[in-house]
Amino acid sequence: MSIFYGIGVGPGDSELMTVKAIKAIQRLDIVYTPKAHRDGISLAEKIASSYFPKKLIVKRRHFPMTKNLKEKQTNWRTIAQEIVEDVQKGYDVGFVTLGDPSVYSTYSYLLNLVRKRITVKTIAGISSFSQIAASVSIPLALDNELLEVIPATAKKAQIEKALDDNDNVVIMKIAVNFPMIYQLLVERHLLNQAIVVADSSMSEEKIYDLRDVSSSEKLPYFSTLLLKKSEIVED
Amino acid sequence: MSIFYGIGVGPGDSELMTVKAIKAIQRLDIVYTPKAHRDGISLAEKIASSYFPKKLIVKRRHFPMTKNLKEKQTNWRTIAQEIVEDVQKGYDVGFVTLGDPSVYSTYSYLLNLVRKRITVKTIAGISSFSQIAASVSIPLALDNELLEVIPATAKKAQIEKALDDNDNVVIMKIAVNFPMIYQLLVERHLLNQAIVVADSSMSEEKIYDLRDVSSSEKLPYFSTLLLKKSEIVED
Repeated sequence: MSIFYGIGVGPGDSELMTVKAIKAIQRLDIVYTPKAHRDGISLAEKIASSYFPKKLIVKRRHFPMTKNLKEKQTNWRTIAQEIVEDVQKGYDVGFVTLGDPSVYSTYSYLLNLVRKRITVKTIAGISSFSQIAASVSIPLALDNELLEVIPATAKKAQIEKALDDNDNVVIMKIAVNFPMIYQLLVERHLLNQAIVVADSSMSEEKIYDLRDVSSSEKLPYFSTLLLKKSEIVED
Repeated sequence: MSIFYGIGVGPGDSELMTVKAIKAIQRLDIVYTPKAHRDGISLAEKIASSYFPKKLIVKRRHFPMTKNLKEKQTNWRTIAQEIVEDVQKGYDVGFVTLGDPSVYSTYSYLLNLVRKRITVKTIAGISSFSQIAASVSIPLALDNELLEVIPATAKKAQIEKALDDNDNVVIMKIAVNFPMIYQLLVERHLLNQAIVVADSSMSEEKIYDLRDVSSSEKLPYFSTLLLKKSEIVED
């Protein structure tokens, strides 16, 4: 029975891939890799490629970063149809995706379009927020604490509520709305309890102490904020 | 320079360990493994042991599951002190922990007690909630959706708020408060949008459709609930 695997390759460092992800990749006939720009490279492919078997067919597909939902849906349907046909022809097919395929991933849309037609297996990956916490050795949550994960593109009122109501807050892809979020942190006197990590686990990883940057700082696209209000018991 | 590694071994299946975790383990002189019961086995040790190098010294330590914070702190301090001494003697020392070391892990307390005295590296692992989403191929969050992670031991009002204010909610270790949470879901007509996965990725993994169980169901200790309110675009 042929299978479609959604494979999380983790946040950047190839060593943050799981054994299960690597074994799945080595079993594939065809892998689909996503590119945000037509002429760009696929970061997920770059991370996983050292594990690609020799005869693997790599199908690079462009997922435009547009706010036009119809355009995106048409694109997803075309790629989903290709995947279904490949699996129905008897091939084991994979789709590699940055981080964890269950966390804000385009994979979820493909999954939804193919799941009733072919067998699907999803292989978890290390999410960017998990890696950020590891990079700086700060816990995401402890004891009875709450952890909220919210994208920087959420409504301002939702971000305010997240900051006010939780012990720990992760804001994904913060670069797209950094000035607004920076201001919300200033108003709440929370600048010194937040850090931003860009390109986590990659060679260009950078950790920002928010007290050292201004609200106009140009952050890389893959920048994630971790706000931690509580102090844990000190020695 | 000797290092203390906090190593996430993932939710249960040894193949869900990362290459980075395995390489760190193979570099260790001493590994500390946590047991919840004095005579029990360490689940984290069981998951990681096939990767243990031959000469590895395994120090099994008991972390009592008690609500007495003083007793727990005394215990953490004793073990933290042992770890510091081992690293200062020149050994590479590890602590293996279930799931992700940054997510509700005892590792965070040890980390806090040792971080000013020795060099620490934290290695991320697949969290239980990430694996649950993968097991059932359901996304944790998409687009502008919010994801809240909350332990079942949080206050009832906090759990109500989490259920009311978020698109997606993960409730950790739900067995300890299942009747109350089940009732909250019934009141909100959300039973059919929640699933519970017990012992995710282990051989005894079980997926519960909440419409098929009663509020008095005895769930295993490692049971996590995933509530997903939204429907994603269907084909």
